[in-house]
Amino acid sequence: MIVVMQKGAEAAQVQAISELAEGWGLKVHVSQGEERIIIGLIGDETRVREPALEMMPGVEKVMPVLKPYKRAGTEFHPERTVIKIPPARHGDRGLAIGGPGVVVMAGPCSVEGRDMILSLGAFLKGAGAHLLRGGAFKPRTSPYAFQGLGVEGLRYLAEERSVVGLPVITEVMDTRDVEMVAEFADIIQVGARNMQNFNLLKAVGRCNKPVMLKRGLASSLEELLMSAEYVMSEGNPDVLLCERGIRTFERLTRNTLDLSAVPVLKRESHLPVVVDPSHGTGHWDLVAPMAKAAVAAGADGLILEVHPDPSRAISDGPQSLTPKRFKELMVDLELVARAVGRNLY
Amino acid sequence: MIVVMQKGAEAAQVQAISELAEGWGLKVHVSQGEERIIIGLIGDETRVREPALEMMPGVEKVMPVLKPYKRAGTEFHPERTVIKIPPARHGDRGLAIGGPGVVVMAGPCSVEGRDMILSLGAFLKGAGAHLLRGGAFKPRTSPYAFQGLGVEGLRYLAEERSVVGLPVITEVMDTRDVEMVAEFADIIQVGARNMQNFNLLKAVGRCNKPVMLKRGLASSLEELLMSAEYVMSEGNPDVLLCERGIRTFERLTRNTLDLSAVPVLKRESHLPVVVDPSHGTGHWDLVAPMAKAAVAAGADGLILEVHPDPSRAISDGPQSLTPKRFKELMVDLELVARAVGRNLY
Amino acid sequence: MIVVMQKGAEAAQVQAISELAEGWGLKVHVSQGEERIIIGLIGDETRVREPALEMMPGVEKVMPVLKPYKRAGTEFHPERTVIKIPPARHGDRGLAIGGPGVVVMAGPCSVEGRDMILSLGAFLKGAGAHLLRGGAFKPRTSPYAFQGLGVEGLRYLAEERSVVGLPVITEVMDTRDVEMVAEFADIIQVGARNMQNFNLLKAVGRCNKPVMLKRGLASSLEELLMSAEYVMSEGNPDVLLCERGIRTFERLTRNTLDLSAVPVLKRESHLPVVVDPSHGTGHWDLVAPMAKAAVAAGADGLILEVHPDPSRAISDGPQSLTPKRFKELMVDLELVARAVGRNLY
Amino acid sequence: MIVVMQKGAEAAQVQAISELAEGWGLKVHVSQGEERIIIGLIGDETRVREPALEMMPGVEKVMPVLKPYKRAGTEFHPERTVIKIPPARHGDRGLAIGGPGVVVMAGPCSVEGRDMILSLGAFLKGAGAHLLRGGAFKPRTSPYAFQGLGVEGLRYLAEERSVVGLPVITEVMDTRDVEMVAEFADIIQVGARNMQNFNLLKAVGRCNKPVMLKRGLASSLEELLMSAEYVMSEGNPDVLLCERGIRTFERLTRNTLDLSAVPVLKRESHLPVVVDPSHGTGHWDLVAPMAKAAVAAGADGLILEVHPDPSRAISDGPQSLTPKRFKELMVDLELVARAVGRNLY
Repeated sequence: MIVVMQKGAEAAQVQAISELAEGWGLKVHVSQGEERIIIGLIGDETRVREPALEMMPGVEKVMPVLKPYKRAGTEFHPERTVIKIPPARHGDRGLAIGGPGVVVMAGPCSVEGRDMILSLGAFLKGAGAHLLRGGAFKPRTSPYAFQGLGVEGLRYLAEERSVVGLPVITEVMDTRDVEMVAEFADIIQVGARNMQNFNLLKAVGRCNKPVMLKRGLASSLEELLMSAEYVMSEGNPDVLLCERGIRTFERLTRNTLDLSAVPVLKRESHLPVVVDPSHGTGHWDLVAPMAKAAVAAGADGLILEVHPDPSRAISDGPQSLTPKRFKELMVDLELVARAVGRNLY
Repeated sequence: MIVVMQKGAEAAQVQAISELAEGWGLKVHVSQGEERIIIGLIGDETRVREPALEMMPGVEKVMPVLKPYKRAGTEFHPERTVIKIPPARHGDRGLAIGGPGVVVMAGPCSVEGRDMILSLGAFLKGAGAHLLRGGAFKPRTSPYAFQGLGVEGLRYLAEERSVVGLPVITEVMDTRDVEMVAEFADIIQVGARNMQNFNLLKAVGRCNKPVMLKRGLASSLEELLMSAEYVMSEGNPDVLLCERGIRTFERLTRNTLDLSAVPVLKRESHLPVVVDPSHGTGHWDLVAPMAKAAVAAGADGLILEVHPDPSRAISDGPQSLTPKRFKELMVDLELVARAVGRNLY
Repeated sequence: MIVVMQKGAEAAQVQAISELAEGWGLKVHVSQGEERIIIGLIGDETRVREPALEMMPGVEKVMPVLKPYKRAGTEFHPERTVIKIPPARHGDRGLAIGGPGVVVMAGPCSVEGRDMILSLGAFLKGAGAHLLRGGAFKPRTSPYAFQGLGVEGLRYLAEERSVVGLPVITEVMDTRDVEMVAEFADIIQVGARNMQNFNLLKAVGRCNKPVMLKRGLASSLEELLMSAEYVMSEGNPDVLLCERGIRTFERLTRNTLDLSAVPVLKRESHLPVVVDPSHGTGHWDLVAPMAKAAVAAGADGLILEVHPDPSRAISDGPQSLTPKRFKELMVDLELVARAVGRNLY
Repeated sequence: MIVVMQKGAEAAQVQAISELAEGWGLKVHVSQGEERIIIGLIGDETRVREPALEMMPGVEKVMPVLKPYKRAGTEFHPERTVIKIPPARHGDRGLAIGGPGVVVMAGPCSVEGRDMILSLGAFLKGAGAHLLRGGAFKPRTSPYAFQGLGVEGLRYLAEERSVVGLPVITEVMDTRDVEMVAEFADIIQVGARNMQNFNLLKAVGRCNKPVMLKRGLASSLEELLMSAEYVMSEGNPDVLLCERGIRTFERLTRNTLDLSAVPVLKRESHLPVVVDPSHGTGHWDLVAPMAKAAVAAGADGLILEVHPDPSRAISDGPQSLTPKRFKELMVDLELVARAVGRNLY
């Protein structure tokens, strides 16, 4: 931690800061510039109470030197995390996310019914998808909109897994539902609007299922990593980071899909990175180009909305692919994956 | 709802949309422009499944005509909501928020201990504050930061109320804690990061205590009103809307305090509007000018961080006022309130 | 300047940086932390080529210590700048902007004709306005929209000044027009879209007329100050800084008026600060509350759009005040100014 | 154009709007909903003065139906624009941008000297680049930073073209320099900060050289297309659109590269689309993944910063590729281009 003193700061002020920092077990190093005194605090930065420093008389600014994410960062964990998903049925192949194979999660925005899930699941499996996505609990802006089938929806997903064989990713929104969702899901999703619902993060951190954390609409990548840190610090090491678009001034897309997040997150962290071009763009005709771009940028996985009849979807129809378009896209994705030295899992 | 068809849309496509809308109980009005066919759907817009319309073949765009907030909006509720807070102790005066008197909530970011709460409460009451703010449960970006005193903190707040007499506003972060917090608090706060935690909104909507809803960092004012709608649609009519700054590219302030939100929310809604210049700016020296500006813009209340010794605050020290500065500010606020035809409550 | 080395940086890398910095005439101070080596560069930061440092092998990040604005900042120029505008006609009173009196500039978005300017000018003067605003050259998003009357418009403004007596502020958009506009205007305006048109900044920096610099839609306050620095470094010390709203995700206002800019700019700089609530909000009904808020926040001036008949305005009608509303607002502004210890000039 | 009237609007108000619109030569269609009167204005929307409509008594909102870009849009110009660049030297091959071949522009941020330009040009040509980029006039945030070599820089670029044979793209910043730059450049670049410098747009619109228009830091894609419309409406049909990152709250990248802009612009417009991952990310290690992603998303061209020794670059070193890394990237780009059915030109 580096403390820059104001022009004309007094010796007593420097002394006070030194004493404060030494009280936290840090070594202090004062250096006198031409216009400013600079104080270096040497030792474990997590012991520093940064706001307290900022408030000390004579301080102009405080600059941290180290990165605040320990478990999620590459500094103390250089080897990449590969998350294993066991086979859904005896005899099936399991999955590994974060290795050379790119993983595709696909399915409807909401679980709308039993038949839909079973037949769409079977189709997606045949087309090469690796996981089925589908929301039983739905975060909706309006209280008057469809809120999901709840437990009933979870049961349809479970049935699909045992009958069809695609493992399942589904969202949890409430600390009270975490245990139940963890029982049904292969990957638990924490949605963008809950990325800083810290109690929910702690609760999923105590599950033994992998957690996919979606970036909040106005969350920085550092904050996404700090949210992963919440989950990991409770004991769950299996976190997937998901870029799904941030909110900007642009109005021709629903969100601004920040694909630079992929190489940045892969540099800063050892966790696998997934991209959601459906929410990221909001329009089905943008999903294919952005899915290919995500793989070219180095994504370890994609999560895509597919609906048997998007114009009848209860939610997110405009950004859903038809089954036919999904099938064509899978062919294209294999080509792009190979062009960057990978393949679809 | 208005549907604009693509150039060259066919009669059969128009027909299909008409049938869909008539199935929802709407009347349909087709009009032929020079370059586009436009379809007006007349009747209750909440019956329209907008995404379904957008996906119909031949549709270019769908434009809603009515506002989506019914209970929170002025259209069906033109008279202003005034929220009554009963006296904390027998013989004290109660509060009314949303009337001519401007209400000031003040206190530390976190409840740090019993003595601090009791003595600061007494000071604030003497200086003219109307409610004590203080967090027992704290949302923190880092899992390694202080997370609040929890129930112990709530008890100190309750003691302050019965001993000193300032009613209390405090935050709830978890659906599992709602009942307990509602027992202790005079106003329940839902924080910015939980503004779209829809299960939490429903849970506080079933309480019989007023709820202050803070605007999310990337939430539009329409979304804030839709979140109020969630609370109100569960039966709780007493919602306060709080502007606390949004996230932008600007780095010299912690957030960008959007004071235009005050007159916009007061035009769109009948609910009282509160401003938080402490979080909105992040720096104590900006709090006084922005608090005065908020009152000049028409705010019904302010929520301010005050700490007996900001340089020793566990959280948010840099944006906290000292007691002395708070006292001076209260004098200035009274002058500004009078200049715009109001007064401090 | 402080250089933080990567974990495991080598002595030779530190040596290379030291030599580079010493070549720029700086003193070098190396300090060894527990996990990082930190290098302090002591001396004139403007001699440092920051990007070059960032590229040196072993460097993790480079952190500047000093502020980049010299002439616009308070550090080397603590006394406040008060800009004098000479009287428009013999016997009239001149103006001072940046002192205790708040100055109001008012007028139409575009100069639409001679009669309009003369009669509106007379009205505004009577109502207490201090300067007439009006665009002869108009930046318009569409090439098919009205582009302003050009030189003809400037002549009407000049006639107003000599006949009615209100000094004039008007915009320049092209380096080729700077001399001509400087002849006609009392204050030259550089619009938001030209805030980083550096050649234009240099050109107005060589004029002997005050320059009002509007903040760009996505410009940080630091960049605004650096643009002022451009003007000042060419020899023109008379710069007014104008907050006029930034671009965010919010859609109920045209821009997000960042009133915190007022106290921040007044802390960072000695230059007068003006607020434009007309462009800042885009809706006439928000102009009055935000104008009052701006004065309460400490603004030295306001610039307001007023049109004799807003529904017939060629541009910006929706955000223009009627003469009647302007007159009422001036009364309210005087009250708010007094509440914060000032008055209208 | 559709006008939505306020609840309770009166017949006389509707009548007044009808008369206004008929005066503009439009047909009027009034329809009575359950809660609102809606007025459709049929005919040429460019004749409508939208702000005037918004100001009419009784109007709630005005919604345009047609897109405002005529020349840049696909509606009246469905075939794609392919821009031809003639060979730099007799016997060389010319270029076509916007066809199946992806074009790569590469070179230093600033022209730093004659030798650098000649030797780097030769290297880039050998590595497969199609155009040399290099700035002679540099827009810099600080007046104290290097401002470019000016005409001298242009001469080095011209020499490179005639000696080495790579055509040249370079920036113009000032209306006074347009003619001169047009003489030297094969493509004239208008930078992000000048995207709404409308006089500059008009001036380059009167040149007979192609113009590459960079998206402004806070410009919507619609505004970018309207700026293209400015150039085209002056008679120059050869406009390239360049996505180079927008400004958001994210701090780990210099800008947020909005790759969705590629498929959106290619749907909305017939003009070629170029991506600049160097400015778009600000870090050389992010350039390769984002360049590949841009090609996968459908970009017609890339513009990349390459410097012989980035740590000694006068500007933009941190985002510049070394020649070695550029050469490797070209191989990868060819593979990705083929995976999406294209190739490098």
